[in-house]
Amino acid sequence: MIDLARLPGVARLIDLALAEDLGRGDVTSESVLDGDGGPASAGLVARGELVVFGIDIASAVFAAVDPRCAVKARLAAGALAAPGAVLADVEGPAVPILAAERTALNFLQRLSGVATLAHRFAEAVAGTAARVVDTRKTTPGWRVLEKAAVRAGGCHNHRADLGSGILIKDNHIAACGGVSLAVARARARAPHSLRVEVEVDSLAQLGEAIAARADIVLLDNMSVGEVEEAARAAHAAGIQVEVSGGVTLERAALYARAGADFISVGALTHSARAVDIALDFR
Amino acid sequence: MIDLARLPGVARLIDLALAEDLGRGDVTSESVLDGDGGPASAGLVARGELVVFGIDIASAVFAAVDPRCAVKARLAAGALAAPGAVLADVEGPAVPILAAERTALNFLQRLSGVATLAHRFAEAVAGTAARVVDTRKTTPGWRVLEKAAVRAGGCHNHRADLGSGILIKDNHIAACGGVSLAVARARARAPHSLRVEVEVDSLAQLGEAIAARADIVLLDNMSVGEVEEAARAAHAAGIQVEVSGGVTLERAALYARAGADFISVGALTHSARAVDIALDFR
Amino acid sequence: MIDLARLPGVARLIDLALAEDLGRGDVTSESVLDGDGGPASAGLVARGELVVFGIDIASAVFAAVDPRCAVKARLAAGALAAPGAVLADVEGPAVPILAAERTALNFLQRLSGVATLAHRFAEAVAGTAARVVDTRKTTPGWRVLEKAAVRAGGCHNHRADLGSGILIKDNHIAACGGVSLAVARARARAPHSLRVEVEVDSLAQLGEAIAARADIVLLDNMSVGEVEEAARAAHAAGIQVEVSGGVTLERAALYARAGADFISVGALTHSARAVDIALDFR
Amino acid sequence: MIDLARLPGVARLIDLALAEDLGRGDVTSESVLDGDGGPASAGLVARGELVVFGIDIASAVFAAVDPRCAVKARLAAGALAAPGAVLADVEGPAVPILAAERTALNFLQRLSGVATLAHRFAEAVAGTAARVVDTRKTTPGWRVLEKAAVRAGGCHNHRADLGSGILIKDNHIAACGGVSLAVARARARAPHSLRVEVEVDSLAQLGEAIAARADIVLLDNMSVGEVEEAARAAHAAGIQVEVSGGVTLERAALYARAGADFISVGALTHSARAVDIALDFR
Amino acid sequence: MIDLARLPGVARLIDLALAEDLGRGDVTSESVLDGDGGPASAGLVARGELVVFGIDIASAVFAAVDPRCAVKARLAAGALAAPGAVLADVEGPAVPILAAERTALNFLQRLSGVATLAHRFAEAVAGTAARVVDTRKTTPGWRVLEKAAVRAGGCHNHRADLGSGILIKDNHIAACGGVSLAVARARARAPHSLRVEVEVDSLAQLGEAIAARADIVLLDNMSVGEVEEAARAAHAAGIQVEVSGGVTLERAALYARAGADFISVGALTHSARAVDIALDFR
Amino acid sequence: MIDLARLPGVARLIDLALAEDLGRGDVTSESVLDGDGGPASAGLVARGELVVFGIDIASAVFAAVDPRCAVKARLAAGALAAPGAVLADVEGPAVPILAAERTALNFLQRLSGVATLAHRFAEAVAGTAARVVDTRKTTPGWRVLEKAAVRAGGCHNHRADLGSGILIKDNHIAACGGVSLAVARARARAPHSLRVEVEVDSLAQLGEAIAARADIVLLDNMSVGEVEEAARAAHAAGIQVEVSGGVTLERAALYARAGADFISVGALTHSARAVDIALDFR
Repeated sequence: MIDLARLPGVARLIDLALAEDLGRGDVTSESVLDGDGGPASAGLVARGELVVFGIDIASAVFAAVDPRCAVKARLAAGALAAPGAVLADVEGPAVPILAAERTALNFLQRLSGVATLAHRFAEAVAGTAARVVDTRKTTPGWRVLEKAAVRAGGCHNHRADLGSGILIKDNHIAACGGVSLAVARARARAPHSLRVEVEVDSLAQLGEAIAARADIVLLDNMSVGEVEEAARAAHAAGIQVEVSGGVTLERAALYARAGADFISVGALTHSARAVDIALDFR
Repeated sequence: MIDLARLPGVARLIDLALAEDLGRGDVTSESVLDGDGGPASAGLVARGELVVFGIDIASAVFAAVDPRCAVKARLAAGALAAPGAVLADVEGPAVPILAAERTALNFLQRLSGVATLAHRFAEAVAGTAARVVDTRKTTPGWRVLEKAAVRAGGCHNHRADLGSGILIKDNHIAACGGVSLAVARARARAPHSLRVEVEVDSLAQLGEAIAARADIVLLDNMSVGEVEEAARAAHAAGIQVEVSGGVTLERAALYARAGADFISVGALTHSARAVDIALDFR
Repeated sequence: MIDLARLPGVARLIDLALAEDLGRGDVTSESVLDGDGGPASAGLVARGELVVFGIDIASAVFAAVDPRCAVKARLAAGALAAPGAVLADVEGPAVPILAAERTALNFLQRLSGVATLAHRFAEAVAGTAARVVDTRKTTPGWRVLEKAAVRAGGCHNHRADLGSGILIKDNHIAACGGVSLAVARARARAPHSLRVEVEVDSLAQLGEAIAARADIVLLDNMSVGEVEEAARAAHAAGIQVEVSGGVTLERAALYARAGADFISVGALTHSARAVDIALDFR
Repeated sequence: MIDLARLPGVARLIDLALAEDLGRGDVTSESVLDGDGGPASAGLVARGELVVFGIDIASAVFAAVDPRCAVKARLAAGALAAPGAVLADVEGPAVPILAAERTALNFLQRLSGVATLAHRFAEAVAGTAARVVDTRKTTPGWRVLEKAAVRAGGCHNHRADLGSGILIKDNHIAACGGVSLAVARARARAPHSLRVEVEVDSLAQLGEAIAARADIVLLDNMSVGEVEEAARAAHAAGIQVEVSGGVTLERAALYARAGADFISVGALTHSARAVDIALDFR
Repeated sequence: MIDLARLPGVARLIDLALAEDLGRGDVTSESVLDGDGGPASAGLVARGELVVFGIDIASAVFAAVDPRCAVKARLAAGALAAPGAVLADVEGPAVPILAAERTALNFLQRLSGVATLAHRFAEAVAGTAARVVDTRKTTPGWRVLEKAAVRAGGCHNHRADLGSGILIKDNHIAACGGVSLAVARARARAPHSLRVEVEVDSLAQLGEAIAARADIVLLDNMSVGEVEEAARAAHAAGIQVEVSGGVTLERAALYARAGADFISVGALTHSARAVDIALDFR
Repeated sequence: MIDLARLPGVARLIDLALAEDLGRGDVTSESVLDGDGGPASAGLVARGELVVFGIDIASAVFAAVDPRCAVKARLAAGALAAPGAVLADVEGPAVPILAAERTALNFLQRLSGVATLAHRFAEAVAGTAARVVDTRKTTPGWRVLEKAAVRAGGCHNHRADLGSGILIKDNHIAACGGVSLAVARARARAPHSLRVEVEVDSLAQLGEAIAARADIVLLDNMSVGEVEEAARAAHAAGIQVEVSGGVTLERAALYARAGADFISVGALTHSARAVDIALDFR
C-alpha cells in the first residue's frame, strides 16, 4: 500500500487544510496555555458504529503541526468499530494536539463516513457477483482519498479520472453522431490499456453497442426489469453491464440480482455523512 | 463581495480539483470528438428544489479549462430554485465543456447542498432572535467556500479559523486550571479584536464564566430546559449564549425559543448532502 | 507555542527565500571548498543590544539546506541580548552553513529588529494599563512572523487579517452612509466572535459610535488632550479606546497616560531596522 | 523592462501576501457594504517627499483581487514625488479596492522606501566614479523587487544571488587555506561569465589578491585612508575595489572620493523605512 | 482538444522553467535595451525537416512573460515542416521576446523532436495493423506534453501513469507467486475500466497468461520469430500482443509484420533529439 | 556540495514527476501484492558503459514515496561505470520500490546520459586549455540538475540563467545599434560581478568588440581557421574566446587546438540520450 499522505496531491490538500484553519496560529490554545502546554495523551474515540479509514491522514496532520505528535492506530483501515471504541492513541504536547485536532478529525470523520457507507453497500450486494463502484462525483481535492475510503469499506473503484477510463456518455454520442462511430474512434485513438464503456438509453441502443463491440455498457436510470433483459443480451455477447442512477441500498441489491456486473453509486462520495469521532484527552 | 474564486486558497483548490480529474486530459472526449468539438450550449439545471450557491466557482472551473467557456447565471447566489429551473447557461466549445463538467458540478452540487441545508435551519429559527451558525467542522480545503454557502443559505458564520475567535473548550480549561484563569489569560494575551467565548458544562461553571466576565458562553449538549435557565442567568450578566451538540432542525427551533443567541450546527457543513444538478446540452 | 516554521505560509516564505538566493547553488562555496567543506562550528553573535526573535526560523533555514546543520539556541525568544552575546550555536558541514548563512541571518536580523523595537514601545507604556499593538502594515509575506516578533518584544497584536477583526474606517463610513448603520450591519452580518471597532474623527462622531454601541473606537491622529476627553466619554459607556497615527515612543507614553487602551503603531513592523547579528566561525 | 509582477517568485509573494491578509475575506467591507460596494475612485497620494517605485506591483495586487480594479500611474518608476503628489489613480468597485488597499500599500510603501533611500545614496556619490551597490541583505522573498527598487533610486546591483557572482569571504579563505588557492579554484571551477571578487582584511592580503589576479577586491570595515591606499595599489594592477561595512551617507561620499569603485550598503534594503503613501477616496 | 498549457501540471512546469531562467530578470536585454525595447517581429523557423509540435506551449511561455507577445501558428500541430519553413510568427516588445525566447524554444525543440521521431516510427509500421506506442520512460515533469507529441507524430499512447493501466511485470509475478494469481488479483481489485496486461518471458508463460485470460501479453526482448509464434497463439485466444525492448525503426517494421498489435518504444521520449528551430528577428 | 534534491526548484520537479506518474496510486502493484509487498532488495545496474550522475535524486524519489526505501550508492557521482556494474543498492518494501522505480530511473538515466556525453566532450579537449561548456538549451525544469550533470562529466558550466551572465547576441546588437554601445550599456547598468561577453559575426566586428573592451567574444558558426585568427587577435587584447554552433566531438578538438577558451555545446543537454540503467530485484 502506498502511503496516501505522501502523494503530492494529498500533501497539498493537507497543507491547504492547515493553512485555512491554523495559518494564523491558534489564538485560544496559545493564549490560555503556556509554551507547548506540556505532554498530553488522548484517544480518537468512535461515537457510533463505523468503519474506520483515515487514521494515517489524521496522523500526518498532527505530524505536520509538530513531529512530536505521534498517532498509534489500534484498528486497521477498514475495520468495523463499535461505539466507544478507541481507534487510535495520540501522544504529544498539548498545544499542537489542540491546534491540529479539528483538522485531523475533519479528515478522519469524512473518510470514515465514506468507508462506513461503502460498507453498507458492499453488504447489500454480498453473495452476488456484482461490484458496487464509486464515481467521479467526489469532493474536489479529495479524489484519491475518497476512492481509497471506498475500497476500505468493501466497494470498488470506477476510473480514477478522465484519463484512466473511456466512458462514452449520451452527450458524446450526440456530438459524435452515433454509438458505432464513437466506439470505433475510442478504440482507434485511446490507449489500449483502457476498456471502452458506452452509455445506452434503450435496448435498441444496446444492440448498437453490442454490434460495435464495446467492452462494457452503462445502463442509466433503467428499471430492474430492463436491467435484467439488457444484462442477458449483453452477457450473451461477452459484454459487461454497469447500472447507475440514484441507487439506494435496496435497489443495489435488486440490480445485483438482476445481473448487473457493476453498480455505480455517486452517493458513496457526494453524500456520505461524516461519522462522529472525538478526541478525548486523558 | 470579494470574488471567492480569486482567493489564493480557493484558486489552489480549483487547481487541485482539475489536476486530479483532468491532469492527463479527457481521453473519452478527445478521442470521440474532433478538435474542440465545435460550439455547444448547455444549461445547469436543478433536479430538485434547492438554494443555489457556487455558480461563480463553477464558472471559474470552466474558464480555467478554456477561457472561451462562458457561464451566465440566471439566479443570484442564495436564490431558491424550483425543480427543473435553469440556474445558468454555459456556452463554449464542446470538448472543454465536457472535460470541465464533472469538476464544475462537484463544486456546485456540494455548495448548493450546504446552502440548501442552511436555508432549512434559517427557516427553523425564523422569527426568533437566534442565529444558526456554522462550525470549523468544514471539509478540509473548503473552509471559505462552505462558510460563504452557509451565509448564502441564511445562516451565519462562527469564527473563520483558530486565529479569528477565542473559544475556550473543556480541554483548555482542564489544562489551564480553571475558567477564571483561562478567561483572564485570553483577555491578557489575545488580540483585542476578538471576543472571549468559553464552554461551560454546568450551571456552576456558568457562574464562574459570568464572574470571569466572558463575552459568550457555549453550552454543549444541554437540554432545552437547562439552556433556558442558563440563558436567563447569562443574559442578566450581559453575556451571550451559544448552544451546540447534535442540533437538528427541531431542536434548533426549541433552543432558539429557549433564549439561545447562537446555535452552532456542525452538520451544516460536515453532513450536507450534495443536491442534484445536471448539465443538459441543447 | 506552535512551531511557526511549520505553518504553511511560513514554510512557503522560507522556500521562496532559499529559491531566490540559493536556487542555482552557491558558486563560491562550491568552487572554493571541496565536497561539503568538512565539519564547522559557528556562533550567531549579537553586534549590539537587541531582543532576540527568530532563531527557530533561522534553524529551519539551515535545516532546509542540509538536515545535518543543527542550531542550538542559547537565549529564549524575547530575551534581551547584550552586545557580543552568542545567541545560538550552529554546527554542521561548512558548505551548507555558508550557503544558508545569509538567508538565515536575513530572517533573524529583521525579526529581532521588530522585537527590539517592540520592546522599546512596551517599555514606554510600562506601568500604564495601555497596550501597544501592531497593525496590518507588515511586510507582505511576513505577517505571522512579524506579529510573533511583536509579541516577543512585549507588545500585543491587533487583528491578524481582514477576517479576524472588524475595523470600520472613514472610507467604510462614507460609503455606507453613517456610523450607526455601519455598526449595525457589522453586528448583523459578521461572526459573533469578533468585536466591532469603529474609527471616529471627532467627538461628535464618538457620540454616534457610543450610541451605536460599538465595542471599541479608534481615534486617528488626535491630540493628547482630545484623546483624554474621548477616552473619558468612551469608558463611561463601557467602550474601549484605540489611538493611532504616527505614534512615537514619546507620544505612546502620553497617549497611555491619557487613557488609551490600545495604541497602534505601524512603525513596529513597517519601519523597524534590522539589528546586526553575525555568523562567526570558530 | 520585464514586468516584475509576472515573474514566478514575485507572483508567489503577491499570492502569499493576499492569502495572509485576505484569505478569509474582508469581514468589515463585506458586512458594512452591499455587493461590490459600487464604483469608486481613489488616488495613491505621497504623504512626504519620496522616490516612487512599485506602482506596477500595487496594480497587480488590485487586479489579483478583482480585474475590474485599474491603476493608472501618473509618475514613472524612479520619479521624485513631492508631498501631496498623486502617484496613481485607482478605479474600480469599492469593496475590492478596500480589500486590496493595505496589501497594495504595504508593497508600494516599502519599495518606495528603498528607492528613496537609494536616491539619497546615489546623490551622496554623485560626481564621482563610484557606484553605490546593494547586497544580499534583502528581505527574504523580496530579492528581485528590492533590487529593482535600488536601481530605480539610482544605485546599482551587486550579484543577484549565490549563483551569479563569486565573492570569496574571510570564512572561505580560512576554510580553503589561502587567497591564492581560493581564487585559483574559483577560476577553475566556476562559470566563466562571473568575475572573481575576494575579501581582503589587510594590505598584505591585498597583495596576495593582486598576485592571484582577482578581478575585484572587497575591503570590509577599512578606514578612508586605508581604502585610498588599497585602491591605489589595486588600480595599478587593473583590479577594482569594493568597500563595505556600516556605510552611512557621509562615509559613502568619503569612500567614493578615496577611489572606491563600488560601495556596498546593506542598509539600502535591510533598514529602509517605509515611506508614507495613502489611498484617498474621492 | 484540451489546451495543454492550461493543465495544472503543465502550467507548473512552465512556471518552473521561467523561474529557473528568468527568475532574476534578463540582465543582458534589460541593460542593453531601453524600456521594453520597442515593437519587434520574429519568426520561428525550422532549421531542418521536422514534425512540429508545441507552438501552443511556446505561445504560453511568451504570454506568461508579457501578454503583449502574440504567437500565431502557420502550421498545425503534427504538420511536417520543410527546412526553412516559418512555423509561427511572434509579435511583441523586443525585451520580453528576447527574455522568453530560450525557454520557448527549449519547449518547442524538444516536443518537435519527439513528434519527429514518432513520425518516423509511424511510417515504419505504416500499412500494418500494428501501433507504435510510447512508454512511461518520459522526461520527469513532461509526461502529458511528451505523450501529446507522440500522438501528434502519428504514434499512440500506452497508459498515462501507474493508475491508468495494469501492466504486470516480471517483478510483480515473482513477488506475487505466479501469472494466474497476479491476473486474478488485478481483475478482482483494480478498476474495471482497465484491461489487464501481463509480461511473459517464454511461450510457457504465455500459455499461463492465456489460461488466466489476460487481455494483453507483453513480450519483452523476444526475437521476431518468437513474436510471430506468440502472436499466433495469443490471437487464437483473443488476446492482444505488445512487443518491447530496444526497438529500432527496422525492428519495429519486422515486429509489425510478425503480428504484434502494439510495439512500445521508450526511445520515443527518452532519447529523442531536440530539432533545430530558431527565432529569427525581422 | 549542496544537496540538489533539497533545492526548491528540484523539490518541485520531483513532486511534479511523482504527481504525474503516481498521483492516483500504482494500480498494478497495489492490486497484485498485499500490503506493502514485504521487504525487497534490488540493485541499480548499468546496462552499458556510462558516467553515473543522479543517484541522490533517485534516492530522493524513493524516499519521497516511502522513507523506508533506502538507496546506498556504490559509485560516486561522476564515476565511470562498466556495463553490468551495480551503481547502488535499494532496500525497502516492495510496493513503494515498484511504485517509485520508473520515476527514479527516468531521472537517473537522463542525468547519467548527460554526464556520459559530457565525459566524451571533456576527453575530446583533454590536454588543451579549452573548456567545453554547456548552454541554456537545457530541458525546461531541469536546469540546475543538468548543469550539475555536465560538471560531473568533466565539462564546465556557462551562465546559470539570464541573470547570471551578460551575453550580448546579434539581436541585441541590432536592436541597440552597435557593439560599442551595447557593451558600454552593459558595463554601466549590469552588476559588476558579471563579465561582458559579446557575439561577433566577423573579424571586423571582433575589432569593435576589442575596442569596446568586452571581456569575452563569442564566435558563432565560424570555421576552425577563422577561430584561430580571431583567437589570436582577441588574446592579444586580453580577451577570451568562446566558440559555438553545432559542435561535434571532432570539431571540439579542432576548436580547442585553434585557441578557443570555451566551446559551448547545446547538445550536451538538449540531445543527450538516456543511458540504460535497470532496477534488478534480487
